[in-house]
Amino acid sequence: MSARLIGVGVGPGDPELVTLKAVRALRAAEVVAHFAKAGSEGRGRTIVAAHIRYDAIELPLFFPVTTEIAKDDPAYGLRLAAFYDDATAAVAAHLEGGRSVVVICEGDPLFYGSYMHLHVRLSSRYPTEVIAGVTGMSGCWSALGTPIAQGNDVFTVLPATLAEDELARRLADADAAAVIKLGRHLAKARRALERAGRLDGAMYVERGTMADAVVMRLADKADDGAPYFAMVLVTGFARRPDPLPAAGGEKASQ
Amino acid sequence: MSARLIGVGVGPGDPELVTLKAVRALRAAEVVAHFAKAGSEGRGRTIVAAHIRYDAIELPLFFPVTTEIAKDDPAYGLRLAAFYDDATAAVAAHLEGGRSVVVICEGDPLFYGSYMHLHVRLSSRYPTEVIAGVTGMSGCWSALGTPIAQGNDVFTVLPATLAEDELARRLADADAAAVIKLGRHLAKARRALERAGRLDGAMYVERGTMADAVVMRLADKADDGAPYFAMVLVTGFARRPDPLPAAGGEKASQ
Repeated sequence: MSARLIGVGVGPGDPELVTLKAVRALRAAEVVAHFAKAGSEGRGRTIVAAHIRYDAIELPLFFPVTTEIAKDDPAYGLRLAAFYDDATAAVAAHLEGGRSVVVICEGDPLFYGSYMHLHVRLSSRYPTEVIAGVTGMSGCWSALGTPIAQGNDVFTVLPATLAEDELARRLADADAAAVIKLGRHLAKARRALERAGRLDGAMYVERGTMADAVVMRLADKADDGAPYFAMVLVTGFARRPDPLPAAGGEKASQ
Repeated sequence: MSARLIGVGVGPGDPELVTLKAVRALRAAEVVAHFAKAGSEGRGRTIVAAHIRYDAIELPLFFPVTTEIAKDDPAYGLRLAAFYDDATAAVAAHLEGGRSVVVICEGDPLFYGSYMHLHVRLSSRYPTEVIAGVTGMSGCWSALGTPIAQGNDVFTVLPATLAEDELARRLADADAAAVIKLGRHLAKARRALERAGRLDGAMYVERGTMADAVVMRLADKADDGAPYFAMVLVTGFARRPDPLPAAGGEKASQ
């Protein structure tokens, strides 16, 4: 029984930012699963569509429509858990049948991704492999062309879903930060950055590696509308008065 | 004048974890620069050696030997700054001659990488492109197969070069963390993890994506020797009592 679960990171959006390993896994895949909103193709699948075999069995995993349930309602979490259980059963049916299943994951599979809900349910039962991918964050700061962290910098990833006080406290305490999952939380994130004294250098990035990327100083963004995958980057390295490296922590010291 | 500086992320070590974009940039490169310890090939170049053109001009940038200078001695920083200035001049000479220069970068170029010292010195003078790569961290937690962060988790990157008190404080305050640049700081990092109550779940990873990877619970690692690129991962998602997603913060809510 060699059927495997393979979580494949496909990177931040640019089809060229897919790894050789991901391409090979997709080209060999008998069954290809991907997460998507109901009625859409799914961003991850779009990125690697060219590498999916013509004879692959496709297994789209459509998130339930949950707009009628408030996110802080326990029913919301239960609905999602039931969805992940169903998705797990659908994937497991192929594994039981001896067919390996590639799960397409935007960015990096184990970093704030939906794949890990399958992973924790299946990896103890079936051989499992995870292929790392370029994160959305890396895609964004590379598009921006601004060094994010260096030397002794502390870098923190903050979901914008956190409370404003906590965002402000943590932003004030980090050298560099990425505020992810902006969506309807942009106004709150902006206030937290302002309170932390970090609004001035904060950059807003939307679809960082795509042709229609939006990159601007957050202070220059007039409105508070943002898609879920937009992020704000606060750079550490750029804060230094001069670009010379700090003593210590250099690769030369290996 | 179309000569460009191109910082190319080549990922964490597995030659298969290089992106299509990096391969194409290397195959087209007239000049290929890479950082290395004096007398060695350089880890980054080893990863992508197969993609370098036979007629490429190679520009190895050898770190100065600095073992005779203490890292907290200002002379250390000055010596490195002089090295980066010299490296910049060597790269600029090719750009002035109309030849684009690809700089090989382990991991992701703008994330704790040596490349950014060239970037800040050259990107305002020449057209510059940065190709994002898979970070060493992503390579390690993927090799580990353990979800690192999910939902509202706060994830923090901590250079082990920080003071023990600061490491302990920040470890206690994060849901998930990567302690990077371990090297001779492993004993200190271990004490900080213990003080923060996070030693139990901490995983030690060395050469995460390579055939000779070392992955173990830090508590089971008997000694305090570690290479510079080893890291400790403290996972957030795994701390949850059950694997069900928290309400909110799911991609379905986009």
